[in-house]
Amino acid sequence: MHAALNHTVRPAVLVRPAIHEDPLAYLPFSAIREYRKCQAIYTYGEPSTGIYLVVEGKVKILRQAGRARVAVDVYRSDEFFGESALAGFAHRKEEAVAIEPTKLMSWSRQEIEDNAVSRPKLAIALLQLMVSRSLEFADRIESLSLESIERRLARTLVRFAGRFGDELDDGTVTMDAFTHDLLSQCVGTSREIVTRFMRRFQQEGYLHYSRRVIALRQRALIEWQTAPSAAALKRSAAVAN
Amino acid sequence: MHAALNHTVRPAVLVRPAIHEDPLAYLPFSAIREYRKCQAIYTYGEPSTGIYLVVEGKVKILRQAGRARVAVDVYRSDEFFGESALAGFAHRKEEAVAIEPTKLMSWSRQEIEDNAVSRPKLAIALLQLMVSRSLEFADRIESLSLESIERRLARTLVRFAGRFGDELDDGTVTMDAFTHDLLSQCVGTSREIVTRFMRRFQQEGYLHYSRRVIALRQRALIEWQTAPSAAALKRSAAVAN
Repeated sequence: MHAALNHTVRPAVLVRPAIHEDPLAYLPFSAIREYRKCQAIYTYGEPSTGIYLVVEGKVKILRQAGRARVAVDVYRSDEFFGESALAGFAHRKEEAVAIEPTKLMSWSRQEIEDNAVSRPKLAIALLQLMVSRSLEFADRIESLSLESIERRLARTLVRFAGRFGDELDDGTVTMDAFTHDLLSQCVGTSREIVTRFMRRFQQEGYLHYSRRVIALRQRALIEWQTAPSAAALKRSAAVAN
Repeated sequence: MHAALNHTVRPAVLVRPAIHEDPLAYLPFSAIREYRKCQAIYTYGEPSTGIYLVVEGKVKILRQAGRARVAVDVYRSDEFFGESALAGFAHRKEEAVAIEPTKLMSWSRQEIEDNAVSRPKLAIALLQLMVSRSLEFADRIESLSLESIERRLARTLVRFAGRFGDELDDGTVTMDAFTHDLLSQCVGTSREIVTRFMRRFQQEGYLHYSRRVIALRQRALIEWQTAPSAAALKRSAAVAN
């Protein structure tokens, strides 16, 4: 990805939980559909009718409240989304948008259920996937409940580095840059505040970013993010009592 | 539950999504274990090794960060919890505690997988359950990202009314009271702030509470909670730009 840098590159898989069964091993191939950057895959008006697999590219899942938008998550190749269709009701709160040129496979709820009856391990694999996802969501509920915006941003960057980044020999992780707009939708704040904190992280040596790439001193940022700050200790005492 | 009131009582199921398959229909009975109020079911040191069904009572799921605690959710009779065991790794971030005298059934991960292979609809039912749960978690991520503490508290009360309450003829919903401590863990703030807002909701006629019961004017509170406030509009504009 950023091969111009003179380092051995290996995937920086730090935060992905172990999935024992892979749903793809039990699903038939489906036709591949291509989407342009910024093209909607499903919208509030036309909700998801099936589950999608990212073959190539990246997709963000958004929720809208008034004029504000929250990014529920970003999915990359080999990851599934649109699972709300499996709950058996049209879910009109979510929108999926390709954030770069993207290729997808998809299966309807009926196809998933039919396959799961003949191959029970498919349902078990999807179940494990959904359990892992709900644990990640619970991590975010914890972070949003207790952490400052600055720490939430650091946590988001570390999480993205683990999922989308490549780790170099010296421990630096590089990944394609995310817009400050998207980061603000993940963290639950304004773009201006994200830009302010990104500048501060850069000044303090935790990362370096350009329009195209973020290079993250991942270990240092994790240490900063998990160390108790004076404010966090005070807040934590207030919440605990 | 609060039958002393002279009203027809019906369950106030407003927010639970439709689940098409019921996992219980495909699971063998298991021995029932009883827990005292405040007794831990699993802890950070001894994580969940299986999935639990609440037969009677209520259970809260907590996460700890420093001295602060976040309540991920509260589960009642006929609801499952402890599903992290199904992801296939010991999940040491969660604690489950009975908040009233509680009876539980439980199944190990192996029992669930063995049953799912012979009865594929069990896995589909659990899958639908987990999809619904992750959608509820995404609702909370949206709320925590965009809403003020006061609105988050109102949303929590409305959600609990839908799950734990009984609706009277006049639209009032009554439920057993939750401690302000637990509400603060659900909302991500201090107990003092919850008490202040509960008093304000009471003064403004949205609810009435005692140590034992909360009576909620649910429709009025939903209208208040979803109406755009001046502050919310300003914040929403900041996030959207």
